[in-house]
Amino acid sequence: MVCAMESRPIIILVNPQMGENIGAAARAMLNCGLARLRLVNPRDGWPSERAEAMSSGALDKMPPVDVYDSLADAVADCHHVYATTARSRDMVKPVMTARDAAADSRAREKTGQQTAFIFGAERAGLSNDDVALAHTIITIPVNPDFWSLNLAQCVLLCAYEWFQAEAPAHRPYEEAPASMKNLTALYERLETELQTHGFFRTQELRPNVMRNLQNMLARAEMTEQEVNTFHGIITSLTKSGK
Amino acid sequence: MVCAMESRPIIILVNPQMGENIGAAARAMLNCGLARLRLVNPRDGWPSERAEAMSSGALDKMPPVDVYDSLADAVADCHHVYATTARSRDMVKPVMTARDAAADSRAREKTGQQTAFIFGAERAGLSNDDVALAHTIITIPVNPDFWSLNLAQCVLLCAYEWFQAEAPAHRPYEEAPASMKNLTALYERLETELQTHGFFRTQELRPNVMRNLQNMLARAEMTEQEVNTFHGIITSLTKSGK
Repeated sequence: MVCAMESRPIIILVNPQMGENIGAAARAMLNCGLARLRLVNPRDGWPSERAEAMSSGALDKMPPVDVYDSLADAVADCHHVYATTARSRDMVKPVMTARDAAADSRAREKTGQQTAFIFGAERAGLSNDDVALAHTIITIPVNPDFWSLNLAQCVLLCAYEWFQAEAPAHRPYEEAPASMKNLTALYERLETELQTHGFFRTQELRPNVMRNLQNMLARAEMTEQEVNTFHGIITSLTKSGK
Repeated sequence: MVCAMESRPIIILVNPQMGENIGAAARAMLNCGLARLRLVNPRDGWPSERAEAMSSGALDKMPPVDVYDSLADAVADCHHVYATTARSRDMVKPVMTARDAAADSRAREKTGQQTAFIFGAERAGLSNDDVALAHTIITIPVNPDFWSLNLAQCVLLCAYEWFQAEAPAHRPYEEAPASMKNLTALYERLETELQTHGFFRTQELRPNVMRNLQNMLARAEMTEQEVNTFHGIITSLTKSGK
């Protein structure tokens, strides 16, 4: 795993203020399979007990965090840098969503490029000089009436999109579904019992009522076990109460 | 905007422990255009100064947070409930990623269904009883070696995916789905009748059997009419045969 981590994106926090946010960002990174964190001039120094506590163990599982004096040094070994910004900038630079940037980064990684995602300080974000260093701007689409994302939340969204860019999409449940034969037998028994108990107000309505019931039960996609349970329910309810 | 908010998903936190997480969740929600937050038995009560501070103004911009004694009450007016879980559960219930669930919710909203996303407590997550109430399980694909997401981060990812999603065209059927209130009442009546008729072999097994039945019936996504029909079936079967 460490080996594979080598080519994954590096997360760089520029002038982060609160240790809590650094720790929460580390946790979010590792949740999404990213482990390389760099800091540029963290306000309260490094290491940080608050970061440690908020990381829920992530910092212990990651390679040591590297600290730099300048963003230029921090990105020196990278090939492509994405700068996250909320405010629009007067720069002629490609702007991507986090999702598109994730796909873009994955494609670059495949060709051996080292990518980095850079994030500004809690209040001010990245300076124009920081953004100018980057190749691409990431703007995460959010509510225009309440757009200010917490730093760790912003890191999470970029890391999450990166992780999803190759994650499998769908997992149906695993139990064996009932065979149509057993389902049909259940429908027939239910109809017989309902007939016996005077459920159908008129015999003309009966086929339609049964179709509706079958539609409903089909949607449940019952397992074999559940068909048996349903038989048990009918058996139980048709006995006189205790 | 208030008008449009009406039909958007409701976020429900079950037994949340830390006010900070509630506040961070509120901020993340509003970042993604969701404003209706409900709490079930928050450990430290409500309102919370810590939540207020961490929300960065979001709680002031949202409708008042509603507090409930039970999850059943909190989802009573909803039609489709998504339960977020990290651990796998032995339940036969559809499992979706947050992305697929977001698309699914958008489609339901278009037909007037009220959806809700429920989240468990920081440490333990949702109980099996909580999950059994839901129609669909959401499992967010994350690093299997470090999968524990912070509560607010989990809320963010679901809200973010909702915000990014556009309602797809597909729609299974058009009838009005039953409200959770009426579904819960049906489950309760069924349990009472099964108990009266000696269905449960042991009382220890009873909660698990009922959870399995709820999972099955939730998958059927019954309409109001079908819930009434199901009541009619129970009434009919529990009468002595003609």
